[in-house]
Amino acid sequence: MEVTATSVDGVTLHRFPEVMDLRGSLTAGEFERQVPFTAKRYFLVYDVPGKDVRGEHAHRRCHQFLVCAKGSLTVVVDNGAAREEIVLERPTLGMYVPPMVWAVQYRYSSDAVLLVFASDYYDPDDYIRDYDEFLSALASSRGR
Amino acid sequence: MEVTATSVDGVTLHRFPEVMDLRGSLTAGEFERQVPFTAKRYFLVYDVPGKDVRGEHAHRRCHQFLVCAKGSLTVVVDNGAAREEIVLERPTLGMYVPPMVWAVQYRYSSDAVLLVFASDYYDPDDYIRDYDEFLSALASSRGR
Repeated sequence: MEVTATSVDGVTLHRFPEVMDLRGSLTAGEFERQVPFTAKRYFLVYDVPGKDVRGEHAHRRCHQFLVCAKGSLTVVVDNGAAREEIVLERPTLGMYVPPMVWAVQYRYSSDAVLLVFASDYYDPDDYIRDYDEFLSALASSRGR
Repeated sequence: MEVTATSVDGVTLHRFPEVMDLRGSLTAGEFERQVPFTAKRYFLVYDVPGKDVRGEHAHRRCHQFLVCAKGSLTVVVDNGAAREEIVLERPTLGMYVPPMVWAVQYRYSSDAVLLVFASDYYDPDDYIRDYDEFLSALASSRGR
């Protein structure tokens, strides 16, 4: 498995092996080893209109790992200092998004299915949904 | 979340809520709560020819949880005493397969993506790939 950095500190891209034969293809990932946490929760996002934007938030404490299980979509990650756009277009590519990174997903293909693993159970208080509030929270955490 | 038994002891079907709005659909599951274990590993199976059969094995110790993330496929589960065929055709339906249940997957739609969570890391010794050996192992575990 290959892990590469992005221009956004902490955000990494993980390329998993694919086992392909006449009976189909398989790709696998291990928690704590290749996915850098134990998942408490998974979710699947699908049937997203191509023009729509999803995400648009940061998490205070929750780590996430994104895999486009089918089709393709584009993710923008932003840590207040750098911003990068990454296309997820194969199930063998995973993207680790640590806490305090703003993330937006858009340009879903009509067949896209986004699989996300989260390190924590759902907690509405963990979400920062306003970009200015995100920048303020970043500044105050750096000031500590 | 609704859990229903099947005719195969221990195999259960889990129906997860779906959050649907104009920006798409989302379904989520929690490990240890709705999925009855912590996942050590996930895998994705795709591009399976419709006529082909996959699976055809039991696990000695590993628990699995199957979700058809896209498209549809059919799973046959068999514990030596009962056998049932179940169609997985929506991402909101999960299927728990405990250890010592023989499972086969087939009739994949061309767009099908099967997502599987496993309670253990990959271990080739955990697989029973021969049905007669599976029946013998069942008999000897009952004799204990």
